[in-house]
Amino acid sequence: MTKKIKIVEVGPRDGLQNEKSFVATEDKLEFIRLLSETGLSTIEVTSFVRPDKIPQMKDAANLYPQVLKFTQEKGIATPCLVPNLKGLEVAKELGVTEISMFTATSSTFNQKNINATIEEAHARQIEVAKAALNEGMKVRGYLSTVFGCPYEKDIEDKDILDGIQRLLDLGCYEISLGDTIGVANPDQVKRITKLIAKNFDLKQMAMHFHDTEGMALANIYASLEEGIEVFDSSAAGLGGCPYAKGASGNVATDDVVNLLHKLGYETGVDMDKLHDASSFIISKIGHTAPSKFFQAYKGRK
Amino acid sequence: MTKKIKIVEVGPRDGLQNEKSFVATEDKLEFIRLLSETGLSTIEVTSFVRPDKIPQMKDAANLYPQVLKFTQEKGIATPCLVPNLKGLEVAKELGVTEISMFTATSSTFNQKNINATIEEAHARQIEVAKAALNEGMKVRGYLSTVFGCPYEKDIEDKDILDGIQRLLDLGCYEISLGDTIGVANPDQVKRITKLIAKNFDLKQMAMHFHDTEGMALANIYASLEEGIEVFDSSAAGLGGCPYAKGASGNVATDDVVNLLHKLGYETGVDMDKLHDASSFIISKIGHTAPSKFFQAYKGRK
Repeated sequence: MTKKIKIVEVGPRDGLQNEKSFVATEDKLEFIRLLSETGLSTIEVTSFVRPDKIPQMKDAANLYPQVLKFTQEKGIATPCLVPNLKGLEVAKELGVTEISMFTATSSTFNQKNINATIEEAHARQIEVAKAALNEGMKVRGYLSTVFGCPYEKDIEDKDILDGIQRLLDLGCYEISLGDTIGVANPDQVKRITKLIAKNFDLKQMAMHFHDTEGMALANIYASLEEGIEVFDSSAAGLGGCPYAKGASGNVATDDVVNLLHKLGYETGVDMDKLHDASSFIISKIGHTAPSKFFQAYKGRK
Repeated sequence: MTKKIKIVEVGPRDGLQNEKSFVATEDKLEFIRLLSETGLSTIEVTSFVRPDKIPQMKDAANLYPQVLKFTQEKGIATPCLVPNLKGLEVAKELGVTEISMFTATSSTFNQKNINATIEEAHARQIEVAKAALNEGMKVRGYLSTVFGCPYEKDIEDKDILDGIQRLLDLGCYEISLGDTIGVANPDQVKRITKLIAKNFDLKQMAMHFHDTEGMALANIYASLEEGIEVFDSSAAGLGGCPYAKGASGNVATDDVVNLLHKLGYETGVDMDKLHDASSFIISKIGHTAPSKFFQAYKGRK
């Protein structure tokens, strides 16, 4: 039996958030419509955050209901990032059924990223998660800086395990372990995944790699060897890295799907249709796709 | 004890050969001089081929003697590709002490690439290799299309083993197994490396990956797990892919060295100096570096 791997497409949110120029709502919508045709089962759509903080997401309340028109009938999950009760209120009114929440292993990162200690943020998140679960929403957790931090030298194993526990305590059904700055290596991935497997259920864990150093597919390969079955990725490799100018950000869905199919895994994703979605958004953002497979696929056509 | 990995830098030959615009001899020379400062022990310098076939290498006879001025005292090996007796004659006169020779697993590829069957080419190569060995030269072999071919559907195990045997029969001290079109995947790499280890001495084998689908580092990681200790790569990811317009070619030395150092291997290569060499050649070829690590390293500076 072919093993199934779930891909969580984060291009419209995590990817676009790192693109400098604002992408028109109608282009985001067409991008997500094309993604909804590919066979992807989960597409992170947007985030309900302060528009002055993240202008790229300022159209969230306008975008989300329109997305439902073509995702709902296909049963595609459409999580949105929600940082606080105010964001949750908007999400609730728009019919959002799944939210994502963030924490980090590194307190310096947390402080610089959201201007709160991990503990302060957690206290608020308990309220948000409780309210979301009360509404029947699913909650997915992101744990940032699992494999390295731009501010702290080493991430302690304890901080990783504590971070996962905090997200599980919130009621998260799945936790996405983030290589936020793209510095993980495959031996490290194996070691940390083994550590996590000893303490938690690996079936609840996803990997979220950035391809900053071109090592994301090697890290995914190492994760697969350890039993991970869910990966986050961004169509065409959309997005960049705020910590290294000009560097790649999220690993490209195109690259991940190609790797998985070559290794004999099932993803449910149609490569031609994925290429259409990636081509469309690349034509709108005004730079070449960071995805090497995207370029090769295009060049071979 | 830290395990040592040898890197064969192929940027000046394999990399530049796939660059469309001619790079001035003085720029090639400065590139190789900078490479010679990095700690690399082997730099493939050029090829003695017909200038009408490969114009980028038309300055081989002028370039090579100048390269020796800064490689010889450091004991850096400077192999050159030699396809025939005419090329060997020139190489001999210029004091070349190591040559590389090519064959392929796929007869269609061989036919289209050099307009001869594998057997016809081999008959000629026996003469070239014999003459080179008689001169006291070392001979390195390249086996193309080990993991896939642009013209034939599948590569038979037998064709891989026969290809290696042909190169060993020529007297090659090392054989570089090429993923010529960049389609290998890590499971395939493991399977083929195991097959080769059963039939030959793995210490004589090198891997030559192309990063066309972004999978080269995953393939190198898989090779390391199987015991491979020599890798070919190209500074900055110089070069492209003649079979996919706009796609990446040789895996970048920058990416490989970064992976190896992170995994705790010794390469002898100084990353800062390698970045200088890569930056220099990128400034001369007029497009961005395919190496993701190069971009990240630059962006973090």
